[in-house]
Amino acid sequence: MSESFFAQLEKKIDTKTKCRVSIPLANDEACAYAVCRGINSGILKATLIGNPEKIRLMYGEISDSPDVSIIDIRDEQSACAKAVEEVKEGRSNILMKGLVSTSTILKAVLNSQTGIKKNPLLSHLCFFELPDKPGVKILTDAAMCISPDAETLLMEIENAREAFCAFEKRSPNVALLSANEKISDKIPSTKLAEAVLSMVSTRKDMVVEGPMSFDLALNEESVRIKKYKGKIQGNADIFVVPRIDTGNALYKSLQYYVKASMGGMLYGARCPVVLTSRADSNDTKYNSLLLGISVWQDTR
Amino acid sequence: MSESFFAQLEKKIDTKTKCRVSIPLANDEACAYAVCRGINSGILKATLIGNPEKIRLMYGEISDSPDVSIIDIRDEQSACAKAVEEVKEGRSNILMKGLVSTSTILKAVLNSQTGIKKNPLLSHLCFFELPDKPGVKILTDAAMCISPDAETLLMEIENAREAFCAFEKRSPNVALLSANEKISDKIPSTKLAEAVLSMVSTRKDMVVEGPMSFDLALNEESVRIKKYKGKIQGNADIFVVPRIDTGNALYKSLQYYVKASMGGMLYGARCPVVLTSRADSNDTKYNSLLLGISVWQDTR
Repeated sequence: MSESFFAQLEKKIDTKTKCRVSIPLANDEACAYAVCRGINSGILKATLIGNPEKIRLMYGEISDSPDVSIIDIRDEQSACAKAVEEVKEGRSNILMKGLVSTSTILKAVLNSQTGIKKNPLLSHLCFFELPDKPGVKILTDAAMCISPDAETLLMEIENAREAFCAFEKRSPNVALLSANEKISDKIPSTKLAEAVLSMVSTRKDMVVEGPMSFDLALNEESVRIKKYKGKIQGNADIFVVPRIDTGNALYKSLQYYVKASMGGMLYGARCPVVLTSRADSNDTKYNSLLLGISVWQDTR
Repeated sequence: MSESFFAQLEKKIDTKTKCRVSIPLANDEACAYAVCRGINSGILKATLIGNPEKIRLMYGEISDSPDVSIIDIRDEQSACAKAVEEVKEGRSNILMKGLVSTSTILKAVLNSQTGIKKNPLLSHLCFFELPDKPGVKILTDAAMCISPDAETLLMEIENAREAFCAFEKRSPNVALLSANEKISDKIPSTKLAEAVLSMVSTRKDMVVEGPMSFDLALNEESVRIKKYKGKIQGNADIFVVPRIDTGNALYKSLQYYVKASMGGMLYGARCPVVLTSRADSNDTKYNSLLLGISVWQDTR
């Protein structure tokens, strides 16, 4: 079996131009774990914003590393603004969410004067790798877009496609997930998929198919039994859910029961915004950081 | 580790009063597998409706068993009506869906003159058992109720509670799944959960809690890390999804990646309606039949 995607990822990172991450209210356990590991591995520099005492307590001797600088700003909103400014002015390369609310950091990213929005939409990408399948897959959106309409869903897909192509140099297969393959007025997610399909019918840079159930997108055996005739035959790369509830349930199922290797980020700004949560495993926290670094290195 | 729920289930079935299943257009591979296994195990009789030649071809020597009768009706609608009549007039005890569409068998079940509706709603129950957790759990609704309002969701919960209590002699913990624990106008599933909660606040026969994410409903570790203070601490028995898309994705994830032991049925008629699909594993097909037999034996 070939080496896992996330293990390969760490090796591919170019250590000559270390990526610098900027973190508002960096005294967050998940950040501390991932950042300390990244600095010890020689792939990362960090600008830690927040209360220096708290940060030193949490990051230990790493706080004194020449690759770490600490900025004393203790207010959540100001810390987010500073972290974004660091990226905007080229002193940092990526963002990571510290002990701040997602809405506060988003407001700083999206600010029309001082922010760093790039794409029409910011959306969440969950990268995952299955035990029995090669390659990385993307689930969107499990954390940010709540009830997207067709236009928003298409923007989610654009973000996912762009990010996928940073890792795999080919057109992705995009599956629009639903409970059913038949388009039915009774099932809104099938109508949503139909609307998206009509908008991408001439696209050459990806295969978009749906509505389809999770198993057809992922499982060749199920494709064979159901005699599914589409282009996607259990080999989807990007899994698009119609609503955040579905994305969240799939994410949690992948996390706790499939034990998939995972990582996540917000995508659509000038740089990746790395998000980790306390309930993520240590590997997931570190994988998320690796993804952020890789996307930056690939797209700069 | 204690024996699995589904293995116990087969042993508990009372073979003195064999259950008789009635199947419209019984020449279905999933039905044939499950029924032949049930008859060989001595726990089942069957009334197979459809084209006798096709049935004999598929069921082999089991077609000649004294526990099997074959009724020659080849039209889908008439076969469904006959299967329901067999139950209504007491000659069969449960229904199993053969090579007919779900909507045709449902129409026969729900017919106000000739049907066998009992509860206000017919809903789908997916019974599952996790590798690392004792006891059976129910996911509802992964196959039938599309976008339930609060009243419908409450009826789904009633069906699930009633079925759960056929197996476990205690009040279930019911988790209303969503992407978030906070009630927010922006996330409809959280408002739906809020509405359901207001309708069950005085109930003593179950604990209903939500909105909550899948991991809090299922995983003690996540409860600990997130410091969740609810009554449900990773020990939900019934998992209620806000929409069929979410239910379907979770079902497929449990089926293909968690490799959970599973079985399913429609619930709310005078008898269970056993549903299997070709893409189900053989064990799932048989488990579904076992569930149907058990529920009948427990509730008759």
